[in-house]
Amino acid sequence: MASAPTREDHFSFGLWTVGWQARDPFGDPTRAPLDPVEAVTRLADLGAWGVTFHDDDLIPFGSDESERERRIKRFRDALDHTGVVVPMMTTNLFTHPIFKDGAFTSNDRSVRRFALRKVMRNLDLAAELGASTFVFWGGREGAETDSAKDVRAALDRYREGLDLLAQYVIDRAYPIRFALEPKPNEPRGDILLPTVGSALAFISSLEHHEMVGVNPEVGHEQMAGMNFVHSISQALWHGKLFHIDLNGQHGPKYDQDLVFGHGDLLSAFFLVDLLENGGPGGVPAYDGPRHFDYKPLRTEDSEGVWVSAASNMKTYLLLKERAAAFRADPEVQAALAASRVPELAVPTLAPGETYTELLADRSAFEDFDVEAAGAHGYGFAHLDQLAVEHALGAR
Amino acid sequence: MASAPTREDHFSFGLWTVGWQARDPFGDPTRAPLDPVEAVTRLADLGAWGVTFHDDDLIPFGSDESERERRIKRFRDALDHTGVVVPMMTTNLFTHPIFKDGAFTSNDRSVRRFALRKVMRNLDLAAELGASTFVFWGGREGAETDSAKDVRAALDRYREGLDLLAQYVIDRAYPIRFALEPKPNEPRGDILLPTVGSALAFISSLEHHEMVGVNPEVGHEQMAGMNFVHSISQALWHGKLFHIDLNGQHGPKYDQDLVFGHGDLLSAFFLVDLLENGGPGGVPAYDGPRHFDYKPLRTEDSEGVWVSAASNMKTYLLLKERAAAFRADPEVQAALAASRVPELAVPTLAPGETYTELLADRSAFEDFDVEAAGAHGYGFAHLDQLAVEHALGAR
Amino acid sequence: MASAPTREDHFSFGLWTVGWQARDPFGDPTRAPLDPVEAVTRLADLGAWGVTFHDDDLIPFGSDESERERRIKRFRDALDHTGVVVPMMTTNLFTHPIFKDGAFTSNDRSVRRFALRKVMRNLDLAAELGASTFVFWGGREGAETDSAKDVRAALDRYREGLDLLAQYVIDRAYPIRFALEPKPNEPRGDILLPTVGSALAFISSLEHHEMVGVNPEVGHEQMAGMNFVHSISQALWHGKLFHIDLNGQHGPKYDQDLVFGHGDLLSAFFLVDLLENGGPGGVPAYDGPRHFDYKPLRTEDSEGVWVSAASNMKTYLLLKERAAAFRADPEVQAALAASRVPELAVPTLAPGETYTELLADRSAFEDFDVEAAGAHGYGFAHLDQLAVEHALGAR
Amino acid sequence: MASAPTREDHFSFGLWTVGWQARDPFGDPTRAPLDPVEAVTRLADLGAWGVTFHDDDLIPFGSDESERERRIKRFRDALDHTGVVVPMMTTNLFTHPIFKDGAFTSNDRSVRRFALRKVMRNLDLAAELGASTFVFWGGREGAETDSAKDVRAALDRYREGLDLLAQYVIDRAYPIRFALEPKPNEPRGDILLPTVGSALAFISSLEHHEMVGVNPEVGHEQMAGMNFVHSISQALWHGKLFHIDLNGQHGPKYDQDLVFGHGDLLSAFFLVDLLENGGPGGVPAYDGPRHFDYKPLRTEDSEGVWVSAASNMKTYLLLKERAAAFRADPEVQAALAASRVPELAVPTLAPGETYTELLADRSAFEDFDVEAAGAHGYGFAHLDQLAVEHALGAR
Repeated sequence: MASAPTREDHFSFGLWTVGWQARDPFGDPTRAPLDPVEAVTRLADLGAWGVTFHDDDLIPFGSDESERERRIKRFRDALDHTGVVVPMMTTNLFTHPIFKDGAFTSNDRSVRRFALRKVMRNLDLAAELGASTFVFWGGREGAETDSAKDVRAALDRYREGLDLLAQYVIDRAYPIRFALEPKPNEPRGDILLPTVGSALAFISSLEHHEMVGVNPEVGHEQMAGMNFVHSISQALWHGKLFHIDLNGQHGPKYDQDLVFGHGDLLSAFFLVDLLENGGPGGVPAYDGPRHFDYKPLRTEDSEGVWVSAASNMKTYLLLKERAAAFRADPEVQAALAASRVPELAVPTLAPGETYTELLADRSAFEDFDVEAAGAHGYGFAHLDQLAVEHALGAR
Repeated sequence: MASAPTREDHFSFGLWTVGWQARDPFGDPTRAPLDPVEAVTRLADLGAWGVTFHDDDLIPFGSDESERERRIKRFRDALDHTGVVVPMMTTNLFTHPIFKDGAFTSNDRSVRRFALRKVMRNLDLAAELGASTFVFWGGREGAETDSAKDVRAALDRYREGLDLLAQYVIDRAYPIRFALEPKPNEPRGDILLPTVGSALAFISSLEHHEMVGVNPEVGHEQMAGMNFVHSISQALWHGKLFHIDLNGQHGPKYDQDLVFGHGDLLSAFFLVDLLENGGPGGVPAYDGPRHFDYKPLRTEDSEGVWVSAASNMKTYLLLKERAAAFRADPEVQAALAASRVPELAVPTLAPGETYTELLADRSAFEDFDVEAAGAHGYGFAHLDQLAVEHALGAR
Repeated sequence: MASAPTREDHFSFGLWTVGWQARDPFGDPTRAPLDPVEAVTRLADLGAWGVTFHDDDLIPFGSDESERERRIKRFRDALDHTGVVVPMMTTNLFTHPIFKDGAFTSNDRSVRRFALRKVMRNLDLAAELGASTFVFWGGREGAETDSAKDVRAALDRYREGLDLLAQYVIDRAYPIRFALEPKPNEPRGDILLPTVGSALAFISSLEHHEMVGVNPEVGHEQMAGMNFVHSISQALWHGKLFHIDLNGQHGPKYDQDLVFGHGDLLSAFFLVDLLENGGPGGVPAYDGPRHFDYKPLRTEDSEGVWVSAASNMKTYLLLKERAAAFRADPEVQAALAASRVPELAVPTLAPGETYTELLADRSAFEDFDVEAAGAHGYGFAHLDQLAVEHALGAR
Repeated sequence: MASAPTREDHFSFGLWTVGWQARDPFGDPTRAPLDPVEAVTRLADLGAWGVTFHDDDLIPFGSDESERERRIKRFRDALDHTGVVVPMMTTNLFTHPIFKDGAFTSNDRSVRRFALRKVMRNLDLAAELGASTFVFWGGREGAETDSAKDVRAALDRYREGLDLLAQYVIDRAYPIRFALEPKPNEPRGDILLPTVGSALAFISSLEHHEMVGVNPEVGHEQMAGMNFVHSISQALWHGKLFHIDLNGQHGPKYDQDLVFGHGDLLSAFFLVDLLENGGPGGVPAYDGPRHFDYKPLRTEDSEGVWVSAASNMKTYLLLKERAAAFRADPEVQAALAASRVPELAVPTLAPGETYTELLADRSAFEDFDVEAAGAHGYGFAHLDQLAVEHALGAR
């Protein structure tokens, strides 16, 4: 049995997750609005550690200054009361019609300027609330037809915007890092920076690239058929896993935002193994928030909302137990060795060796027994079955 | 009518394309082997400019030195005779069973060493034949189960290998650049560096990153549901489009390698427009080889092979005509302006402006008329239809 | 140049298409509501022949009887005034929260009863307005988790509902046929009867199967990676293509509802060729409404809405011209013969032949020259290129 | 811990599964041929009950009569010796170049005749060996371009062929049923009868439709993004689940043929629950062979082959235990009731009720409280989490 979640698990939820009213492209809302204060309180009761939000989740678009302050104050009081923290904040740059062709990359320059202002205002609030990560999901940065968007110019503008905002944070000495959240499509036909890879590449071009990482989401990456564990591994390898969005998805289709584990369960197992155990590395690979970005099913009422919120944490902790047992199993360790998994961590060149020595090493090529090397098995079938059995709690 | 292809069009083909014997996972070959000399001669007759190859396409794996020299000489004679050039060469690191768990990232270190040696030998040959681009398609660098591959270690080894090879090229003063070819899957369940984006990110981490770019393939990117024009745009934006593989594909399924344009025709139109016209930029975005990496259908005999080879070039030239007419059409130019496409090339900040001025600009935020900005239409419907009509040759 | 659309082209549009306010899962509406009367008038001006609607498009859910009558009367007046007909009508069984777990297959029996009543009421209206086709899109008939829906029981209820409604139509002597519209997912994780094939199979089990056919939608079928032309061919083969929804889609992702032809253009060409020319058959395969079920892009204002509406018809007519030229081209006819396309219409057995004679025919097996039969090419490469060139208007 | 497989579990394997030499589109074989006799012996040792095969798996294409007899005899001896049965047999209509454009639907009539003869010969053998199911996988029945295949004519020929073969079986009084195996693509660009649904529809048109069902394969259906449990449910509903191919797949990509459960693990859990428990129905839904149609990974040697074969059975039995516990859990039963899952088995009309009474029932419509019905939650979040926890062995 999985233990109950605690603050030390660093579970966080977006206000827009439990607060989703379940309006979808073909349906009206099935649930009443959720007061952010209630969200904080209920999440705290369930064992969550943090809460995150878009500006408009807390403060309706267009609120005047006093209304804005009033709502922030109520929210802060709830945080203080419950001990819930705000590890991450983000900006809604997608709901209002003004952003229909994008925010930082709208063809309309005045929209781009408005978007930058909207973000700067939120950076102040994020700093005030102690959020150390600021997420950018560019859901409207994209196009439905290639004739309408000069993608290279769009990337120039995207970079211009992020460089400006990074400078702002630096000048203000805010202890904030940026995390870009890739998504391949929906609501735009094709969204810019569609995968973790494209975002990582883009980041390498930024002026203050050291303060910008990624916020990969399980479902977004799986919508493109990507192996999420591979994507996260590459992000970690670049030192860029600044935040993570956990949920579930059934492959390339609309964005489902299911409960974590309720999509590709085996991939969820391997993901938790990577985050908690570093995979075969043996040390945790990530110590940031375990952030759930899911949507309670539209069929559910308020009770179902909280059941599903708890399910995210429960499934994560269950998989953490399973992954720990997997790594601790001597048969698994033997199988890993038989599969030469640790051998991949050994450099291909010997210490001090260069290509000159490699060229001179006849055992590496001229005298290499290719038939023998081609014939030996890697034992992956055994290893994979051990993993499946551990995932199923059957060992 | 499209004009006939000429050398100036810089069309090139892989030996493995027209030479594919049509063995597939469920079927035996339907065509006899094609002599590389015949391939060169026939391609030259059709108007091709270049030919490319994997080492094993020309010299069977395991050939001894004299056999190797004899085959290279015959091939060089054919090149000299026809004037066909070798703009690109690559290494087969996937057919032999030795590479079943990868080459640069095999769990077996001795395989990794063998792979590096195999490439170094080919770099010498590439230089000898005047190839300026050396492609790396890591088709076996991947896994079917997350338990069996330490992806971060694999990326370390991938980088180690490419750094070594780049150093080799530099030390030899070969005028060669590297181009990584991404693919999401097939023949491995998940291939490392699955998309253009992930390859670009990886490249940014290489010691000699300036000499490494990408070789995107239409079908590979579309297998992941990516918009190929967007992927190429990002590659161009990073200055990394070193080579390109043109073919056709019908979305996420097995790798089809259809004739260029015989998959997503509209995307092919926009791609040619980007390469030849720079999209809205107005200047060509790419001047490298137009390389076809396709497979003649298994239903075809030798005659069908050459018809399909010619079709690639013919379709490209047709789309080039269509794209030129699209850009030259005054109605298109007016529609682009109405859609504010050129406005995206204008920086969001005014010359000399910083965020300080932007913060002080009340017209950008406080006094901005969001209702009006949300209400105006972008005219993309008109622009898109103009593009479709130009693609169809109907204007 | 394509000719302008006329009534004889039998183009129809849903009120919900041009009237879509562009609310999507991540954004508020960008356009004002469109008066159905204006929709009818504008569509008539553009050359459309028919208009279709869900009950709630015309009469808001929950309207009282007098409001209902008033709205129907205004609409009828517009029809009478413009000559626009209502070839098809359908029921909204998906927007209201009551349908969140389905209509005919909701786990809640009272919802199922309500749904049947809602449809019966609309069947009366459909008959009154002269609609000869009644469409059933079961967008909410489905599930997100396999634990929550007994699919076999659901199919029982689906059949029960359709059998009852068919009986109602028969008893009332309404000249109405039913058309089921398949979709694989969205808004449900998995929708029942996800493809044309599954709907055709289900129909074969209905009591009044002869009056039930399908209403396939381009994008729905392509969301499952299906070849739409194949799906339509099978529907025609079963005599079940009662209606068709034309639009555009870029493969497996959210439901895009693009303008017809603005997705897979080549498939659109072949579809029009099938509908208008019967493909190689040479006679039109379908004489029903050419119904556009698309959504004007969210970036567009009212002007863009009407441009996009016109674009659907214009593209269809252009492709019709291209397809006619394709079939009329003697080189195409020669290529079809070379590819033995007409030979497939010849039965495999000779007239009067049975398996007994086939077994006795040594030329069919024992003496058959398999090498020769395996070696001859089918000429598909040539045929395909001819099709692409005709689609591009280049012959 | 799962118990060891026994004959009573009715596990069967294709000779082509454990015998796959691991040639793929980009690689040479990594394993030696496997003697069918060894396959039978090893499978028997592992606890398998049955073995299946294509004619060419046992008898190489083109073998003369004496060679054929010799091989059949050796095979029969192995069956007799081990007690392994042959529950299913099938015909290879895809490997030889003769079938490159299909078998029953090749444009070449002489190929179609040859194909029918090849099958008839195998039907005799199937009867001789006691196979009660004969599978038809039409892997080459399809096309890469819509111009080259008259799909309606192809379906005519497909039907002609199956009608003839069914008649042959009937006349010979063979106790054999046919099972069509759908697949969306690979090796053809689009295969006819791509999904379970399309095959079921086609079957309804056959002369002897009562003796023809389907043989759905997990991976084939998931390659089209279909929910396999839904597909199987519909096949069962039509009484057409004659056979089943169990394996694993990661969504729309090439055909992976992974070990059962090594793809979408949660779907595998629900599938076993459906087959063994009938889902919520409570009685087994299927009593035929549990047939594994998988491919041992190309990285594996002979030892890995047998490990993977055993893994299929072990995982199935584990999931069977998990599913039994799921159904037996009182909390699950309470949750099912709360979710009204059993209510879906209750007809929508009361006993004796017709639409007349329904129309008169004001409580069903006029007086129905739509707000209340829209507000109540369905409890699916709870039910789904219980299923996930049972799958994980955590309850």
